[in-house]
Amino acid sequence: MATHRFTPTSYHNVIGTMPAAVRIADGDTVITRTIDAAGYDEEGVQRASGPNPMNGPIYVEGAEPGDVLKVELLAMNPTRDSGFTRSVLAANVIEPEVARDLPRSEKTFWTIDREQRTVRLSEPLAGLQNLILPLDPMIGCFGVAPSLGQAISTATSGEYGGNMDYRLFGPRSTIWFPVFAPGALFFLGDCHAVQGDGEIVGTGVETTFEVTVRLSVEKRKRISWPRAETADDIITVGNARPLDQALQHATTEMLHLLSTDYNLTKVAASQLLGQVVRYDIGNVFDPAYTVACRVAKRWLPVR
Amino acid sequence: MATHRFTPTSYHNVIGTMPAAVRIADGDTVITRTIDAAGYDEEGVQRASGPNPMNGPIYVEGAEPGDVLKVELLAMNPTRDSGFTRSVLAANVIEPEVARDLPRSEKTFWTIDREQRTVRLSEPLAGLQNLILPLDPMIGCFGVAPSLGQAISTATSGEYGGNMDYRLFGPRSTIWFPVFAPGALFFLGDCHAVQGDGEIVGTGVETTFEVTVRLSVEKRKRISWPRAETADDIITVGNARPLDQALQHATTEMLHLLSTDYNLTKVAASQLLGQVVRYDIGNVFDPAYTVACRVAKRWLPVR
Amino acid sequence: MATHRFTPTSYHNVIGTMPAAVRIADGDTVITRTIDAAGYDEEGVQRASGPNPMNGPIYVEGAEPGDVLKVELLAMNPTRDSGFTRSVLAANVIEPEVARDLPRSEKTFWTIDREQRTVRLSEPLAGLQNLILPLDPMIGCFGVAPSLGQAISTATSGEYGGNMDYRLFGPRSTIWFPVFAPGALFFLGDCHAVQGDGEIVGTGVETTFEVTVRLSVEKRKRISWPRAETADDIITVGNARPLDQALQHATTEMLHLLSTDYNLTKVAASQLLGQVVRYDIGNVFDPAYTVACRVAKRWLPVR
Amino acid sequence: MATHRFTPTSYHNVIGTMPAAVRIADGDTVITRTIDAAGYDEEGVQRASGPNPMNGPIYVEGAEPGDVLKVELLAMNPTRDSGFTRSVLAANVIEPEVARDLPRSEKTFWTIDREQRTVRLSEPLAGLQNLILPLDPMIGCFGVAPSLGQAISTATSGEYGGNMDYRLFGPRSTIWFPVFAPGALFFLGDCHAVQGDGEIVGTGVETTFEVTVRLSVEKRKRISWPRAETADDIITVGNARPLDQALQHATTEMLHLLSTDYNLTKVAASQLLGQVVRYDIGNVFDPAYTVACRVAKRWLPVR
Repeated sequence: MATHRFTPTSYHNVIGTMPAAVRIADGDTVITRTIDAAGYDEEGVQRASGPNPMNGPIYVEGAEPGDVLKVELLAMNPTRDSGFTRSVLAANVIEPEVARDLPRSEKTFWTIDREQRTVRLSEPLAGLQNLILPLDPMIGCFGVAPSLGQAISTATSGEYGGNMDYRLFGPRSTIWFPVFAPGALFFLGDCHAVQGDGEIVGTGVETTFEVTVRLSVEKRKRISWPRAETADDIITVGNARPLDQALQHATTEMLHLLSTDYNLTKVAASQLLGQVVRYDIGNVFDPAYTVACRVAKRWLPVR
Repeated sequence: MATHRFTPTSYHNVIGTMPAAVRIADGDTVITRTIDAAGYDEEGVQRASGPNPMNGPIYVEGAEPGDVLKVELLAMNPTRDSGFTRSVLAANVIEPEVARDLPRSEKTFWTIDREQRTVRLSEPLAGLQNLILPLDPMIGCFGVAPSLGQAISTATSGEYGGNMDYRLFGPRSTIWFPVFAPGALFFLGDCHAVQGDGEIVGTGVETTFEVTVRLSVEKRKRISWPRAETADDIITVGNARPLDQALQHATTEMLHLLSTDYNLTKVAASQLLGQVVRYDIGNVFDPAYTVACRVAKRWLPVR
Repeated sequence: MATHRFTPTSYHNVIGTMPAAVRIADGDTVITRTIDAAGYDEEGVQRASGPNPMNGPIYVEGAEPGDVLKVELLAMNPTRDSGFTRSVLAANVIEPEVARDLPRSEKTFWTIDREQRTVRLSEPLAGLQNLILPLDPMIGCFGVAPSLGQAISTATSGEYGGNMDYRLFGPRSTIWFPVFAPGALFFLGDCHAVQGDGEIVGTGVETTFEVTVRLSVEKRKRISWPRAETADDIITVGNARPLDQALQHATTEMLHLLSTDYNLTKVAASQLLGQVVRYDIGNVFDPAYTVACRVAKRWLPVR
Repeated sequence: MATHRFTPTSYHNVIGTMPAAVRIADGDTVITRTIDAAGYDEEGVQRASGPNPMNGPIYVEGAEPGDVLKVELLAMNPTRDSGFTRSVLAANVIEPEVARDLPRSEKTFWTIDREQRTVRLSEPLAGLQNLILPLDPMIGCFGVAPSLGQAISTATSGEYGGNMDYRLFGPRSTIWFPVFAPGALFFLGDCHAVQGDGEIVGTGVETTFEVTVRLSVEKRKRISWPRAETADDIITVGNARPLDQALQHATTEMLHLLSTDYNLTKVAASQLLGQVVRYDIGNVFDPAYTVACRVAKRWLPVR
């Protein structure tokens, strides 16, 4: 299993079928440096423009439509001491009549202390002088080429992944995507130093990262939506509007997972989920919203 | 401050303006026994019918429209060794084409071990033989008489509270409701031994409880939606469909709370929420869905 | 069959179970004068306050829960030469980021020419000097006491009718409501001289009317949502948010209607609806939105 | 202005940036034969597969990003005597609990009488023996290459058009699309002999057509969503889920149109729309739903 250092020469604002930027074998590891959501690199030089410029695509040999791509997020290390956010809640997360009175959003800078592993506003606001958040890296946008040869804006998301902005897509999580194109064609970018649920100001703390991923192909395993696993939980993800529909996709995928991977009937899966399920909200900002359906491993039957 | 034992002689399937079942002074404590969501009491005798029969209303002297009713949930103790759930996921939390293949839901019984404080299926299903959940009491439906003299079914919810089915409305939490009627007219019932997010089988583990609440009036404090506090968090709640709108109400209320109680500007509140907010889903089963907006106290400025 | 002149002594901001204002026999006709949505009568005197003060309830002898109340809207005549609207689109019908730039809404007056049967702005705006609309009366809010003894604000709507603001609820239409309370307890008010789809400024041209209705009880006919008939069409109505759910209710009710009244199988009803259905939007302003499912009579099988 | 006969050699299941199939001058006319939504041609030979195989792209010289493409639908003539529909209402247009009891959908054939210009079920169902619908041609899916070099499935829709299934996109209507790519890159296909609102069985009467369109470039006119005009109406279209959001896009675009083309202030446009607007529902079947905002020309100020 080789390790590749992948340095993009160009970035992409769509996730789609296009010539591979790098080809790797099934099971290889890739180390790559991502630029921020606005296209600035670790030196503050603009290398691309938004939305969410992607590194990729990475062609994984052996991946065929109908397979599953396993993405192990081995490490995420910030490569810059500053990040940025928008400053005001998005209009769509506030009651319409109240949203009218919000001030205009401005780009705001945050300081990332890579030693202390903390994140704070570079110019503190009244009442937030003591707000020092732990560094909590996550990947906002990643996924594989969608079905039918589509190429879809990195502003949104779907079955293929995309801009999901889900907090638990962080270091040491593993994510699975359905494969629609030969080689899977994996893209990644838009990493955040920290982010609340919903990405409700339209950003996390957007910055640059070095990301290490191991990519493997799983044959003969069909999934319809992204799945994930952390130390504690198994997770399925739905992307759609309204949140109700995203939740339907995530729950349906979890029902399938519990059937195929844990051999639970629909009734047993229902009884389990009914009393232990947790729902997380990825983003409620982008064209498609993201809901994660999460179950603690301690409630699962032994496989 | 007196303590009252309140034993209902009748139960209500609406939350609304009606003659008080009991009158208490501001700050008094009430101990009352609730029947389950289907109307069965701790002896298994049917005392009322669904949906969600309520104890109440409790008239709190001094409460006037425009005030806030503070509800301290001092204790919740189950009074029965069995609870029930529905057995199958609700059709509305699954993709429509998949929902068609779900089996019909049936009433299923769970065993509550009050000594061990655990909850488990009375007749285990394959794969769930080892599923023993911790007892985690919560109140599914409670609130105050709504505006305009309305009387609204306990199947749904609104600004006045109602059937929110939110896991964190448990012992030692405090909840605030806006007051719309003289005496506030507080109702409660529909308690669960445990419940996952969303109440996605249409029930938690429904059973009977003895509930102890202290009710106090807060003057000169205006709120629009229920608010709550636990040991760790402050919380606001929105009730509406779709989830997107429930989230808007909850977020708008949190924006107000951070302004009035913590003196944060809209920009400061936005910056805080953007990076630390957590959203929880109450129910996605009832006519109005419930979303909670939650902020850990450790990120809040000192008041 | 008697004709009653009903002059209210008080008005109601909820539709619910309460003592009858007038009792009539099955099949009797009632003539009553409604005040406007803000509570002003035909002389411009404020007689009640909003939202949508109702005349009623009218108790129809013989109506029992499970029956259907047939409402023939025999005549609607405006009783005042002026009406009012709000002046600006509601924030919820515009993209959130654009809604922020709308001016504040103000009460605007319209002139109703009862001879010419026209409606125009009292103080024309630039570009609208020649806008003279035909008088097109409709009833914005009407219905029967809801289930469970509920009393629900006239700002919203449900299975029992309520504030639907649907243009085709005009003179010579017939509407059927499911009966939930003894006597049905019929309420009406909130009449408009004209209104576009969606009531997107939050009002039609709100004014006072004399309304003539004949109320009859239909036994042994079960419906779940309001139904209607005009000279040309049969109609079913759903009330909910989002519009998607309102449309589901209306379509489901039409599927039932085509089965019970026209003996069509689900496949035949589907094939018919698929190629001839029309959807109208009642209001997209109130807490519950309204969608009508409409089928031209000329496509229906002979009964 | 030349007239081109365009016979595709391949068909596309995405609308996106790709090499032109044909290049024409600004103002030229194109006559082309479309295959049906399942990929069958006028002889019943399968030439492509679904969803909605497109003819195109047609490159219009002079069209640049930021321009508008004007599409005059000069003629639509069916080229086959049969069409097909699905037989059962889509699960998402029915209440979830009722949808479970729908039978499975099957492909059903309809007979198109091109002389009489009628459409009827090839094998009539009980109660529908006399159902003979007028031929009412419309184009289900058409549009231009979207922004950012995206290529998007013909199952869905967006600012660039796509699968909108709107009845008024028929012969003699004119439609305008925002241009995102050089040459605009126009695609068309998926024509229907007739269709109800919402495309609620998932199809209209799907068949093959000869379509004649004139394509022209309008410079210095910015639009955000499709616009259209018929003999009687001006129209704007929004594509999104839920319907509420599609309606927001359509209404916002109409507000812009009334400002730029008719010089109405936001208040004047609001007053006009409030009392005369009509909303139509394109499809409620595809990933993005379609709502049209329509205003009769007779209410518009003279330009």
